[in-house]
Amino acid sequence: PPSRLPTVGTTIFTVMSALAQQVGAVNLGQGFPDFDPDPALPQAVTEAMRAGHHQYPPMAGVPALRQAIARKVTSLYGCAYDPDTEVTVTAGATQAILTALLAVVQPGDEVIVLEPCYDSYVPGVELAGGVAVRVPLGEGFRPDFARLAAALTPRTRAIVLNTPHNPSGTVWRTDDLQTLWALLRDTDVLLIGDEVYEHMVYDGQPHASLATHAGLAARSFIVSSFGKTYHVTGWKVGYCLAPAPLMAEFRKVHQFNVFTVNTPMQHGLAACMADPAPYLGLSAFYQAKRDRFRAGLQRTRLRLLPCEGTYFQCVRYGELAVPERRLEETAFCEWLTREVGVAAIPLSAFYGDGRSQGIVRLCFAKRDATLDEALRRLARL
Amino acid sequence: PPSRLPTVGTTIFTVMSALAQQVGAVNLGQGFPDFDPDPALPQAVTEAMRAGHHQYPPMAGVPALRQAIARKVTSLYGCAYDPDTEVTVTAGATQAILTALLAVVQPGDEVIVLEPCYDSYVPGVELAGGVAVRVPLGEGFRPDFARLAAALTPRTRAIVLNTPHNPSGTVWRTDDLQTLWALLRDTDVLLIGDEVYEHMVYDGQPHASLATHAGLAARSFIVSSFGKTYHVTGWKVGYCLAPAPLMAEFRKVHQFNVFTVNTPMQHGLAACMADPAPYLGLSAFYQAKRDRFRAGLQRTRLRLLPCEGTYFQCVRYGELAVPERRLEETAFCEWLTREVGVAAIPLSAFYGDGRSQGIVRLCFAKRDATLDEALRRLARL
Ligand SMILES: CSCCC(=O)C(=O)O
Ligand SMILES: CSCCC(=O)C(=O)O
Repeated sequence: PPSRLPTVGTTIFTVMSALAQQVGAVNLGQGFPDFDPDPALPQAVTEAMRAGHHQYPPMAGVPALRQAIARKVTSLYGCAYDPDTEVTVTAGATQAILTALLAVVQPGDEVIVLEPCYDSYVPGVELAGGVAVRVPLGEGFRPDFARLAAALTPRTRAIVLNTPHNPSGTVWRTDDLQTLWALLRDTDVLLIGDEVYEHMVYDGQPHASLATHAGLAARSFIVSSFGKTYHVTGWKVGYCLAPAPLMAEFRKVHQFNVFTVNTPMQHGLAACMADPAPYLGLSAFYQAKRDRFRAGLQRTRLRLLPCEGTYFQCVRYGELAVPERRLEETAFCEWLTREVGVAAIPLSAFYGDGRSQGIVRLCFAKRDATLDEALRRLARL
Repeated sequence: PPSRLPTVGTTIFTVMSALAQQVGAVNLGQGFPDFDPDPALPQAVTEAMRAGHHQYPPMAGVPALRQAIARKVTSLYGCAYDPDTEVTVTAGATQAILTALLAVVQPGDEVIVLEPCYDSYVPGVELAGGVAVRVPLGEGFRPDFARLAAALTPRTRAIVLNTPHNPSGTVWRTDDLQTLWALLRDTDVLLIGDEVYEHMVYDGQPHASLATHAGLAARSFIVSSFGKTYHVTGWKVGYCLAPAPLMAEFRKVHQFNVFTVNTPMQHGLAACMADPAPYLGLSAFYQAKRDRFRAGLQRTRLRLLPCEGTYFQCVRYGELAVPERRLEETAFCEWLTREVGVAAIPLSAFYGDGRSQGIVRLCFAKRDATLDEALRRLARL
């Protein structure tokens, strides 16, 4: 049959992880920690299994977990969500984003994505029958509201926002939310907020969640990820928040997509969320890694871009004396993986036109020893 | 925004499970066991977590699990699948079915579903932009090939088949596959085979998997479920088989839907699949329950329909002296749950027009003590 996603191949994350493993490179490509979660978390899962939590949980998620999520969101962002009707546990953030798109995008609707962006957004819009409208971020990968305003049309159904931003590491300011609100107040445009790095914001900046702005929150799906917060990316548990009428539509799709999410993991996460220390301390934990990594990179010939949040550090390699044909980002990443022994992700993977700017993304969610080994290798450049 | 699924509410399974819990009824509604898996299975998950399997597995699934699936399918059905390119682990069978539909259905394509059918198929087709064509099963819920032939058009992209069949418990014969092949050979119609009850076929009948027919298998997505086979419906792990070109399209969607599936559970299942005894013995295990349950039901005023497979038993209640307004299936199920203390699923939930035939579905994947208690209550009818 003709392909629904003719231009899509295997994601760059899969490709680079496979190559890194094949050639024994330090894998700073795909975003995942190379260290284990707090042992209390798998222990809580084991206890949930011992208690017999093996069958379907409620479709929207285990009540204790939904309640813990709602409590956290209210205490951090001041926005109340009813755990019964406004919180749904998902099989990861990617599933939440596709489900939100399938729930609200009518065929022909336009959905704005801000480029560069995570590679699932545009195919998600297309699978929902929508038209993705790519609006570039501005200087320093910050929101460019003039361009955003120019892209709005009567067909705009939604905007996908991502802060802290993958791949650039920029974070939205509270001011940005005000500007966005001024732009959208008189429209009925919805928002899908990918906030999976919400607990990784550095240098004392707050996370300007859509949930901190009542007007925006009233028209937002807000998506987050336990995998990223608790160092268990392979558990594939995330969640979505939305006002009840939007959540009702979300759940209609969710129940026919995955129906519900792994019971033992949900119970384990609910038990561990009782203590806010892990997520409250996460920014400090990763800021220390960022600082160590940046200090090391400064001693290489790579040029650092800012990193305000996420566990990604972008670098320019444009001035390196690599052979001409390595200057394209994907070719550079392959070369870096094979010849230098460090895997990275080309920024081109986050653009529809695959443009190459001489920038690659490195993940610092790694043990210090791993970061130091990568730095040793990169110092040889 | 306008709803993408305007006619959809919360699934009947969720509604009836909630009601059963609320009123303390024996829940024979939603299909899930009320007993635990073999302790070796959660133990293997705990060991996988101890071994540090917490991060993203490969997008298509843990290799050992894909290999175990391919081995099982070849040994049972004689069809070879390459674990690297033709097997994908999914977040349950429902996710596999939606993903297959999103992968191959172009806007406006027709997809045939055979009614009665599981409630996710039609919304899945609609979310993919397709048109669901409902073709009734024939006498005794067996395939009616004349009606199927009449429903085929040049726009038919796929047919969703389900054997063993939920809710009726009928199973396809090898002959049926031959007849289907004669009908489809000269078309390019695809098949999506929901075979989640593959290991529950009774009285010595074989499971006529699409994988047993080379011609059909070459154009089929075949979906199965670990939840059903290993008594862990809440784990939400299933799989999809398809020839490489179809699987390539499936994976394009899968990677932007859930991306991948819970790592510890995949490792646990891979370890337990080394021993075929659990799935080879499952039909005998459930046949004993079916026989016990049917024997008890014969002493009630409910009338038994045949049950050749699945863990569902359908019964007619039409001759019961219930008040007139209880005769509609959903009202009867509510009444049965509240007044008799046994939750069931109305067959109307499996039809687009919600027709009522005086039949309800009872799940016998329960401890003998649970079945006996339900029978005691039903005997009062
Ligand atoms: C789901 S694989 C990609 C992980 C990730 O979020 C990233 O590397 O950007
Ligand atoms: C996914 S909830 C429904 C479970 C099931 O397969 C059924 O009861 O038919």
